[in-house]
Amino acid sequence: MNLALQLAASAAGQTGINPVVGCVIVKEGRIVGMGAHLKRGEAHAEIHALNMAGSEAVGATAYVTLEPCSHFGKTPPCSDRLIREGVKRVVVAATDPNPLVAGSGIARLRASGIEVTEGVLEREANELNEAFNTFIVTRRPFVTVKSASTLDGKIAARTGDSKWITGEASRAYVHTLRHRHQAIMIGIGTVLADDPSLTTRLSVPGLHPIRVVVDSTLRLPHEAKLVRDGAAPTVVLTTEQAPAARRRELEARGVEIVDCGPGPAVDLDAAMARLGEREIGSLLVEGGGKLSGALLERRLAHKLVLFLAPKIIGGGALAPANFDFAGFGQMREAIRLERLQVETFGDDLCLIGYPNYADPSE
Amino acid sequence: MNLALQLAASAAGQTGINPVVGCVIVKEGRIVGMGAHLKRGEAHAEIHALNMAGSEAVGATAYVTLEPCSHFGKTPPCSDRLIREGVKRVVVAATDPNPLVAGSGIARLRASGIEVTEGVLEREANELNEAFNTFIVTRRPFVTVKSASTLDGKIAARTGDSKWITGEASRAYVHTLRHRHQAIMIGIGTVLADDPSLTTRLSVPGLHPIRVVVDSTLRLPHEAKLVRDGAAPTVVLTTEQAPAARRRELEARGVEIVDCGPGPAVDLDAAMARLGEREIGSLLVEGGGKLSGALLERRLAHKLVLFLAPKIIGGGALAPANFDFAGFGQMREAIRLERLQVETFGDDLCLIGYPNYADPSE
Repeated sequence: MNLALQLAASAAGQTGINPVVGCVIVKEGRIVGMGAHLKRGEAHAEIHALNMAGSEAVGATAYVTLEPCSHFGKTPPCSDRLIREGVKRVVVAATDPNPLVAGSGIARLRASGIEVTEGVLEREANELNEAFNTFIVTRRPFVTVKSASTLDGKIAARTGDSKWITGEASRAYVHTLRHRHQAIMIGIGTVLADDPSLTTRLSVPGLHPIRVVVDSTLRLPHEAKLVRDGAAPTVVLTTEQAPAARRRELEARGVEIVDCGPGPAVDLDAAMARLGEREIGSLLVEGGGKLSGALLERRLAHKLVLFLAPKIIGGGALAPANFDFAGFGQMREAIRLERLQVETFGDDLCLIGYPNYADPSE
Repeated sequence: MNLALQLAASAAGQTGINPVVGCVIVKEGRIVGMGAHLKRGEAHAEIHALNMAGSEAVGATAYVTLEPCSHFGKTPPCSDRLIREGVKRVVVAATDPNPLVAGSGIARLRASGIEVTEGVLEREANELNEAFNTFIVTRRPFVTVKSASTLDGKIAARTGDSKWITGEASRAYVHTLRHRHQAIMIGIGTVLADDPSLTTRLSVPGLHPIRVVVDSTLRLPHEAKLVRDGAAPTVVLTTEQAPAARRRELEARGVEIVDCGPGPAVDLDAAMARLGEREIGSLLVEGGGKLSGALLERRLAHKLVLFLAPKIIGGGALAPANFDFAGFGQMREAIRLERLQVETFGDDLCLIGYPNYADPSE
C-alpha cells in the first residue's frame, strides 16, 4: 500500500479535479501489476494495473489507495473490471467520499465474493486527496493559503520591497505547490505591486494553474503579465459595480470576468461557488495580506502554508502584514492551526496546518 | 569533558556575573574528582574537584570547561593549585576571555611542565558562558530578547488581551530563562498593561532576577507589583526629564532610579552601560514590542528567543507587534538570525538565534 500511495502521489497536480489513485496488484508474493490515475478522462489506476497484470490478475490481491468506483463516469466502473479479471482480494486505503461512490464500490466487490479490507493507511490516502475530498462533497475548492513572511509577520518592507523574504529552496517549493493546484489566486494589490506571472517554473516542465485575481473595481492593467503573457487562463473575480468599459476591454484581451456579488468588495463565498462551478477543486492563494486575512475571517481557508524567514524587517503599520484583518478581541478566540507540520527549506521554516475555526466558547 | 560541561550547565543562573565552569579529574581510567563553580565568591570548579581527589590528583588529568584562572580574584588562582597538587595534564574547552586571564592561566600551567590540550568542545563551552564572555570584554550585559507571538507577529489582541498566547510548556520555560538571568527588563507599557511580578516561578525554588523597567517619565504606579511585592530589587531606568516628585516617591518605596540620558526617551546605550556598572552581565528582555524593536534598532540585542504559537489573531495596527520599530526600506537589509535553533514546547515553536546586524551592502 505504501508503493500504491507513492504511485498516487507522483501524479499530484496532473489529474485536475480528479483524485490521485495508485494501485498495486500482488500475486504469490510478486508484484504483477501497478498503475496510477495519470490524467482526467483517461484510465483509472486499477485499469492500468490490471492491464499490466493480464491473466496474472486471477486470484491476485489488489492494493488500491481509493475505493474502486462503481459508476460510469468518463470511464466504466473499476469495481466491475476487478470482478471480471478474477481478483480474489482488494485492500482499500480510503473510501471515496464522492456521493456517486461512497461505499458502493466496496459493496459491489463484496457482493461478488471478493474479500475486501478497508482502512489500510487511510489517513495518508485521505491527505493525498484532501482537495478532492472537500470539492466532491461541497462543490467548492479546497483553499490553501500560502504566505512568506519575516518573524515579525511582514510580507514586505515599509517601502513595499519584498525581494526576497525567503530563500531559493522555499521559492522553488512554491512552484511545486503551483503545479499541484488547479488555480492560483491573488489580490489586485499584489498584482499592482509585483506584476507576477504566477506560472510554474520548475527544473522540469510543470503545469501552469489558472490565474485568479480578486479585483472589485477592475484595476487590472492591460500591461500586467497576467493579461499579456498567455501562459495560462486568467479569471478576474469582480463585482456588479465594476465599470462596463473596463470589463469589455479586459474581455477583449482574453481575460474572463466573473461577477461575485453586488460589491463594493468581492463576495468571497460567492467567488468560491463560482470557482467550484468551473470545476476548480484546488486553489492556492498567494496573497497579499488583505486577501489572506479576509479568507481566514470568512472561514474559507482550509489549509495554511506559512514560510517564515529567520529575519526581522520592522516598519510598523507601514509594512504589510501576512494576515491583515480586523481579528479577534480575545487571545483565546485566535484561529489555531491543527495537525501542524514544521518543515525546513534552507534557512527558512515552513509551517503547514489546518485552521480550526471553532468558537472556543462552545 | 561532556560531564564537565553538564556540571557547569547545572549551575547556570546561580553564579551571578561569574562564568559557569565544570571540572572532572580522571586518573587511570577512573573519575577521582568532580566539581562546578556554584556561587560567586566561593570555590571554583577546579578547587572542588581537587579537594575531592585529594592525593589522587598526583599524575591525574583534569578536564575543565574554562581555562583555569591565573589571578587573585575573590579566590586564589586555580592554575597554581593544579600545579601544586601534581596534576599531569589539563584538558581545556575554552580560553577565558577575561583580560585578566586570556591565556595566561594556560601559559602558567605549561611553564610548570603540565601538558595542556585546548579547544575540546570549545563551542559548547563558549555557548554556556556567552553572557560572561560578552560582559567581561564589553562591561555591558549580554541582552536576550524574548517574545511570545502569534504567527502574524502579534503579542496581544487588538483589545490588549494576551492571556495566553503560548501554552504552559512555553511559559514554564520562560521561568527557567528568568532563573538563568541576573536581570529582567520590560517597558513601562507592559507594566501598565499586565502588572507582572517578573519573578521566577518553577516547580523547584528559583532565583528571582533584578527587575528593570524602562520608564522615561516615571509612570510606574505605586500599586504595581514591581513596587509593592519586594520579591527582588526593582530598578527604573529613566531620563533627566523625569519629575523630581515622582522620583522621590518611588525611591521612598525602595525603587532605585537610574538616569539614562537627557530624554525624552531613555538612552538605551547608556542604560546598558549603567547596568554593566552594576555588574549585571545577563539581561532578559520581556517586551513589549516597542522596547524589543528599539533594542534591535540600536543593535543592542545579542540573542532572540521567539516563541511562536500556532495561531493567528489579526487586528491590524491595533494589535501590538512583537518588534515595533521603523524598520528597513529593503528586504535585504532585514536583521537575520544566525545559528538558528528551533525547539518545540507543547504546540508552540521556539526560535532561538543571534541577530546579525551587518550591513548587507558591505
